[in-house]
Amino acid sequence: MTTNQKGLFITFEGGDGCGKTTQLNLCAEYLQKKGFSVLVTREPGSQGLGEKLREVLLHYNGPVAPTCEAFLFLADRAQHINQIVKPALETGKIILCDRHTDSSIAYQGYGRGENIKQIELLNNIATQDIKPNLTLVFDVSEEIAQKRVGSQKDRMESAGKDFHKRVRNGYLEIAKQNPTRVKVVDANLPIEEVFKQVKKLIDNIIQG
Amino acid sequence: MTTNQKGLFITFEGGDGCGKTTQLNLCAEYLQKKGFSVLVTREPGSQGLGEKLREVLLHYNGPVAPTCEAFLFLADRAQHINQIVKPALETGKIILCDRHTDSSIAYQGYGRGENIKQIELLNNIATQDIKPNLTLVFDVSEEIAQKRVGSQKDRMESAGKDFHKRVRNGYLEIAKQNPTRVKVVDANLPIEEVFKQVKKLIDNIIQG
Repeated sequence: MTTNQKGLFITFEGGDGCGKTTQLNLCAEYLQKKGFSVLVTREPGSQGLGEKLREVLLHYNGPVAPTCEAFLFLADRAQHINQIVKPALETGKIILCDRHTDSSIAYQGYGRGENIKQIELLNNIATQDIKPNLTLVFDVSEEIAQKRVGSQKDRMESAGKDFHKRVRNGYLEIAKQNPTRVKVVDANLPIEEVFKQVKKLIDNIIQG
Repeated sequence: MTTNQKGLFITFEGGDGCGKTTQLNLCAEYLQKKGFSVLVTREPGSQGLGEKLREVLLHYNGPVAPTCEAFLFLADRAQHINQIVKPALETGKIILCDRHTDSSIAYQGYGRGENIKQIELLNNIATQDIKPNLTLVFDVSEEIAQKRVGSQKDRMESAGKDFHKRVRNGYLEIAKQNPTRVKVVDANLPIEEVFKQVKKLIDNIIQG
């Protein structure tokens, strides 16, 4: 896939209850006020076919083979990149995306102990090598995350404490390995304080 | 995946209108009469989650990115192997499966010109290296296939004549490359004549 990239692709990552969706929406508002054309989207399940896959991924009640789940995420991601992200990049939009490839690496790789090199290989096929220009990882302590998530748990969120610890450490490891693309935000602070950090990182890249 | 394989995994392959499903059902009846425990299944969409994915794969009306479609087939296959085929193999069943990995190689690889080595690699991940003991390829001329399919076409079946020619040649190539596992059946003949060929190949493997 060759991309005549005029826009920016920014991904929002972190464990459940890290507050990334709230920050994404604040960020969208901030950029729109500055006059940018902003596309807010998410994985899994941005729209159309993605919606159907999200339903399966988050709410299917029967047993799902781990490999099946991994391929469903990849299917959703391939569709999302092809139908939503790529066209928006080409028309100069700033795309703010709630979860992307790093979620697979953190959750399936670090969280579940699946082969990280293989996850990366599969994701390169799915994304046809389109990478985010900036990834914000919202890092939050388990206690605060737990409080924020409360009792509203979907299939992904009910996986247990140890799992979430591994996911959190996984995200920090991803950030360490990709210091240019991935920035860690301290998400333990109040919303406004978190957003100050986000704004600084966003300002850097739009001025970049 | 380690499989304590007591059963047999037999796949039925071929272009649309080749008559494989009819032959599969005759074969099931034949084996049941002989006292075997038979499981009839299919890809995509054997049951449960598979049914949902089959619906998307065959009847979704919007645009579907080719990579997305490929991953959906893989998700379905991973689930099918893990939840249906593997347990049945372990309990000594004969599994008769309508389409499997060779469909992806023939349709996506030979039909659409996608990277065959990559399709094979992805399928090895999805199937966790479980391979059919026997694959029957039902080979039929375009004229007869066309007549059999008639006007009942789903999304996969409405792809055009040249495409189906490439798929047919692809299946013959797969058979050539895997002479022990894959056997070509002349499916231009009347049902009973085709079944005579099938019965011979099935008898060989159950006695084998």
